[in-house]
Amino acid sequence: MPAYSSMDKNLIAEEHKKLSDLYASYKQRGLSLNMARGKPGAEQVSLSNDMLSAVTPDTVFKTEDCPDVRNYGGLDGIIEAKRIFADMLGVEAENIFVGGNSSLNMMFDTIACLMEQGAGDKPWNQQGKIKFLCPAPGYDRHFGVTGYFGIEMITVPMTENGPDMDIVEKLVSEDSSVKGIWCIPKYSNPQGITYSDETVRRFASLKPAAKDFRIMWDNAYVIHDINDTPDKLLNIFDELKKNGSEDLVFEFCSTSKITFPGAGVAAVAASKNNLALLKKRYNFQTIGYDKINMLRHALYFKNIDGVLAHMQKHKAVLQPRFEMVLNILETELGDYDVASWTKPNGGYFVSVDVTEGCAKRVVQLCKDAGVILTGAGATYPYGKDPKDSNIRIAPTYPPLDELKLAMEVFCVSAKLAAIEKFL
Amino acid sequence: MPAYSSMDKNLIAEEHKKLSDLYASYKQRGLSLNMARGKPGAEQVSLSNDMLSAVTPDTVFKTEDCPDVRNYGGLDGIIEAKRIFADMLGVEAENIFVGGNSSLNMMFDTIACLMEQGAGDKPWNQQGKIKFLCPAPGYDRHFGVTGYFGIEMITVPMTENGPDMDIVEKLVSEDSSVKGIWCIPKYSNPQGITYSDETVRRFASLKPAAKDFRIMWDNAYVIHDINDTPDKLLNIFDELKKNGSEDLVFEFCSTSKITFPGAGVAAVAASKNNLALLKKRYNFQTIGYDKINMLRHALYFKNIDGVLAHMQKHKAVLQPRFEMVLNILETELGDYDVASWTKPNGGYFVSVDVTEGCAKRVVQLCKDAGVILTGAGATYPYGKDPKDSNIRIAPTYPPLDELKLAMEVFCVSAKLAAIEKFL
Repeated sequence: MPAYSSMDKNLIAEEHKKLSDLYASYKQRGLSLNMARGKPGAEQVSLSNDMLSAVTPDTVFKTEDCPDVRNYGGLDGIIEAKRIFADMLGVEAENIFVGGNSSLNMMFDTIACLMEQGAGDKPWNQQGKIKFLCPAPGYDRHFGVTGYFGIEMITVPMTENGPDMDIVEKLVSEDSSVKGIWCIPKYSNPQGITYSDETVRRFASLKPAAKDFRIMWDNAYVIHDINDTPDKLLNIFDELKKNGSEDLVFEFCSTSKITFPGAGVAAVAASKNNLALLKKRYNFQTIGYDKINMLRHALYFKNIDGVLAHMQKHKAVLQPRFEMVLNILETELGDYDVASWTKPNGGYFVSVDVTEGCAKRVVQLCKDAGVILTGAGATYPYGKDPKDSNIRIAPTYPPLDELKLAMEVFCVSAKLAAIEKFL
Repeated sequence: MPAYSSMDKNLIAEEHKKLSDLYASYKQRGLSLNMARGKPGAEQVSLSNDMLSAVTPDTVFKTEDCPDVRNYGGLDGIIEAKRIFADMLGVEAENIFVGGNSSLNMMFDTIACLMEQGAGDKPWNQQGKIKFLCPAPGYDRHFGVTGYFGIEMITVPMTENGPDMDIVEKLVSEDSSVKGIWCIPKYSNPQGITYSDETVRRFASLKPAAKDFRIMWDNAYVIHDINDTPDKLLNIFDELKKNGSEDLVFEFCSTSKITFPGAGVAAVAASKNNLALLKKRYNFQTIGYDKINMLRHALYFKNIDGVLAHMQKHKAVLQPRFEMVLNILETELGDYDVASWTKPNGGYFVSVDVTEGCAKRVVQLCKDAGVILTGAGATYPYGKDPKDSNIRIAPTYPPLDELKLAMEVFCVSAKLAAIEKFL
């Protein structure tokens, strides 16, 4: 099958008729499928059910550094939880602050803290217009936080090695109103790209014009492999240490996609200075987070090896899902010049670039046929994909048979939208 | 025994010698006692241990309005938890937002929200100097939040019926830079005062000069009686409804002093408009709070009657503690004109006013003898008690024998500090 762009007009019309009929047949089925968000599926969530009996009425509530996890106190969490996060991220436990159930909330709090207090300069909210670099396609909720605080977003293109570092270095070193950058360094959302060693080293070597510039290193998928050829990410704090610039980075992670998305534990890793900065705010914000849930996690996993063993179970659930998605894409779209997509080794998404100018149309076609995708443009700052091309596929949540059907609808929609351009 | 102020000089010297010797004998014992914070004691915290087996691996995680409490979603909490808080506060479930483990955090978030977004006017942080009314003595952490955001604090005196409403009405109706007031309407911290019906009605009838004025109604001790003659508080939202001014109030509460201080559930009650305002921010801040812990509470208590029955157990633990504290105060200080104190029917504190100019000295004497009290001045904005007189006694946390000893040290210190004035 030749590409639509080089097809004979009559053939195109014929193909369009075929696709329209096929699409109509899906539409007739009155489907109601959702492939929009990166939510673990029911099978994954159930993997952690046994953790719910890790803490019982008979548990010893006095822990190594806490007289009673049930009571007030312990602003930055219990040591047993800190150690697990420290080993997960390759830092020292003293560099960990364990928070509530949401790393997004900790990122939000960190931005709020810098807006209100600043970091070695005036508070961000007293410096007039400030900017954040947003590698894109990226995570819509990062852009949401940035937008909420009125920070201008500058799109930086993603490459197969991470954000385009020539552009990052230039903007960061020349413009003192650039105060930060969002990074998902491993299995990025939505492309599943892991930053190359060189990219990590260049991040650790940044010489910002703004002394209060900070990297938001959202390591959401740090141990979230989906096959047996996992990516390796260089440890950013090891590199920072070499340059004596540990203050550059706030690193975030959580157990939301390890145990329970609604009831996990989140943490931030940061230098002594940066932790002191955060604690200045947290000290007014709360007396402390849920230490019983921290202990529940610590007792269930015991240590990082327990966590890693658990992740093998997630992998076993996710691998066939991602394989199915990639197989359907290959089978249905491989012969046509209408889309390209990533083949990640981990994370929660497959990123598809459909024919330029067609993403919104594809999402609308899917919606009209009862298949909800992440909104077109959501992966870009301000929801505006300049090429109207990127669509995020989230294969984790729907039941397998629904996922298959949703992908079929997606593929016929991608072809239909593309061929409409050549009619 | 006559008051020190009218005592003969020789008698004073004699009495001072006696007190000094007694104080020295306590000091010699090398005590290490803490009566500083309003923390439930170990016996109280253990009352809720059985809740820890309310959710198990076999629990049904699909609830009335949530497909799976383990997964993402449900920004404002599950209906089962909303209902319990609604019944606790006397509002509708649709007016409840259930959050994380800390009502302090929800108050902090609310102030942050108003700073950044405003409420029907420009954001608070774009209005130049703004002010908050702070009834005092009051809760140091309220003042901490206000101070963190750079809001000027205006002290309003407390009366036995609540804040002095003549002053409140005058300031609120005349000064549009007055944006809010902190209230602990039932069993106030530290005095244990419950606002009179007239006070509540006058709050509900306020006509603020600022259209973005808000009352922070921290109902932390809403069902926290300590004896069988509990106070009754008028329902603020019932009164607001009569005036069509439901937007005036944000009401807060939590289970921190019902179940676990470190792992309870907090909630805010507010009008439809005010909830929409909060959700605008929460929607960027988080995907949702710990719904498993909400379900854990809902399954354990079933409904408000379950909560109220549970509070009877707390009362049984607290009543003898408060009686002991009041008895010791009466026995040791009752005959001297050196202190007055409140006799609350609920809450977590006894408020003692020692001889003017002596509070700091009393706290220091106690500290030197190994007894930690809440810092003198902590109950006032900026930590400054104009009379240097108020000291907050927190009888809940220390073991009973330690509480007795700590109170004895406190009483001899109060007398010693007073008599030093007349030497």
